Amino acid sequence: MRVRGRDYRSVWFEGGRVALIDQRLLPHRFKVVRLSTVKQVCDAIRKMVVRGAPAIGATGCYGMALAEVAGVNLRKAYRMLYATRPTAHDLRDGLDYYMGAEGRPVEKADAYADLSAERCRLIGVHGAKLIRDGMDLLTHCNAGALACVDWGTALAPMRVAHAEGKRIHVWVDETRPRLQGAKLTSWELTQEGIPNTVVADNAAGYLMYSGRVDVVVVGADRIAVNGDVANKVGTYEKAVLAWENGVPFYVAAPSSTFDRTCPDGSHIPIEERGGGEVTHVTGVDGRFREVSVRVAPRGVDAFNPAFDVTPARYVTAVITEDGVKRFI
Amino acid sequence: MRVRGRDYRSVWFEGGRVALIDQRLLPHRFKVVRLSTVKQVCDAIRKMVVRGAPAIGATGCYGMALAEVAGVNLRKAYRMLYATRPTAHDLRDGLDYYMGAEGRPVEKADAYADLSAERCRLIGVHGAKLIRDGMDLLTHCNAGALACVDWGTALAPMRVAHAEGKRIHVWVDETRPRLQGAKLTSWELTQEGIPNTVVADNAAGYLMYSGRVDVVVVGADRIAVNGDVANKVGTYEKAVLAWENGVPFYVAAPSSTFDRTCPDGSHIPIEERGGGEVTHVTGVDGRFREVSVRVAPRGVDAFNPAFDVTPARYVTAVITEDGVKRFI
Repeated sequence: MRVRGRDYRSVWFEGGRVALIDQRLLPHRFKVVRLSTVKQVCDAIRKMVVRGAPAIGATGCYGMALAEVAGVNLRKAYRMLYATRPTAHDLRDGLDYYMGAEGRPVEKADAYADLSAERCRLIGVHGAKLIRDGMDLLTHCNAGALACVDWGTALAPMRVAHAEGKRIHVWVDETRPRLQGAKLTSWELTQEGIPNTVVADNAAGYLMYSGRVDVVVVGADRIAVNGDVANKVGTYEKAVLAWENGVPFYVAAPSSTFDRTCPDGSHIPIEERGGGEVTHVTGVDGRFREVSVRVAPRGVDAFNPAFDVTPARYVTAVITEDGVKRFI
Repeated sequence: MRVRGRDYRSVWFEGGRVALIDQRLLPHRFKVVRLSTVKQVCDAIRKMVVRGAPAIGATGCYGMALAEVAGVNLRKAYRMLYATRPTAHDLRDGLDYYMGAEGRPVEKADAYADLSAERCRLIGVHGAKLIRDGMDLLTHCNAGALACVDWGTALAPMRVAHAEGKRIHVWVDETRPRLQGAKLTSWELTQEGIPNTVVADNAAGYLMYSGRVDVVVVGADRIAVNGDVANKVGTYEKAVLAWENGVPFYVAAPSSTFDRTCPDGSHIPIEERGGGEVTHVTGVDGRFREVSVRVAPRGVDAFNPAFDVTPARYVTAVITEDGVKRFI
């Protein structure tokens, strides 16, 4: 992805350390953090310095490389990294890849990152065929290059369609509680020159009902054997609304997101995060200083499931690196 | 409603002025503003010092009383007040009531406020019959006493059920962009001692899908002859999700919200507010100072419809002061 005229990936290895774009600070500040230990990598995943299923998978893989270089027991490193976040399947895919690969530590992780980026590029190529000139798309959360190593999942078809000269416009769900849509997707699309408009998550149904959405494209954190999809909380809502309004609903995900040991969505663990993400909102004030403001009364309870499961019957098709796959 | 051991209404007349609880400052600060002119009343409605359809209706009525006392032309005052916000039908109801009433100015407005409060109390009595001991309810936005003169619409049945000793728990949609759920509903319910939990709007579908919502109750800004309901943006989403999951979806509204000149939802004007409500969030910092933080990148576009229309087919019934009315 292009940032200030330079090409970046969301994660890479440099000078003996794992480098990550700190996604908690975007779009207000662009900062690269560098991590020297497996524990630091675990913390970065848990605290969402890096997020997005494929990006977490590659970061896990680089964490394994750090461990091997430092002589840390690889099984222990695997367990530590695997425990950071429960929902994204790509994390296991990345860790398993590393365990089964041969070669030097960093080369193995780089190979996985290359593979992951190429999968996303191909998702873009296949997905762009579903996008016609003049379309209005809607996406939820950030399934862009930041969420992957590069290209993105849901955003890859938009990048390719835009590069092909198709005029598109993207409605961006702001995606409470962490606002990855308003903060990251809007930033990425604007960097790419793709017209986009941010809306409150509540407005997505209104947009679909009033005929202003031609297609919905989202990413995924885990896809079960029957096609049920775990993704950022609210995805299920948008899928049901798309279904009800006759709007095609596509999930874009590489093969690393498919969990072949998971028969259906009821077996996918849903991470519950702290209520502070709901009762507080982080942004920048007029002087560009980062501020967390409390919006709910003191002492109020909040419940914060980070993901939900969309049953396969609401998903028109899944766009993978191998093509467009229909479950129903 | 009870605030710090004192009984309040959301709007009243005192010392020659219209008094309003400033709803923009809650839950962090409780402040009463006093208005001396029709123009000030118009500004207060437009800037959402007061919001909620029945509360806007009563405020409009008090604005007319101010005009009559000051010798302002009543037709001109009507036009000024009517133009403040386009969606809530109660505003016209309040203004028309005043035009048709006889007596002294403040007495006429007080009579409308009393009538409005009594309608809401009766909504509570009828609606409480639908609530059983142990139920989990979900509501969207604030349709509480603050949104009315007193009692609330959606919250009135909860107040009555709670007073009857039924143990209930309320899931509160935070309701972006202005967060009236997190800020006002949660505050009101906590003042009443009713257990409640705030969730991101995105989590409502997950809660319904996982069987944790027994009934949804919301308010309304305008109800068409065919039963279509305009209410805070996102209501349509929750109604479709309730329908899809077999959860009863009730709309609570007094007769003042029914527009007998409006055949169906397509004729209801939907107010579009500034994008700043989406790109920015207002709360308080650690030192209790009110701060507005920007969450989206600078220069990004935002689209902000304040309401949406829920077709009557998704509404189980409307709870009014006359009882529970089914359209379908």
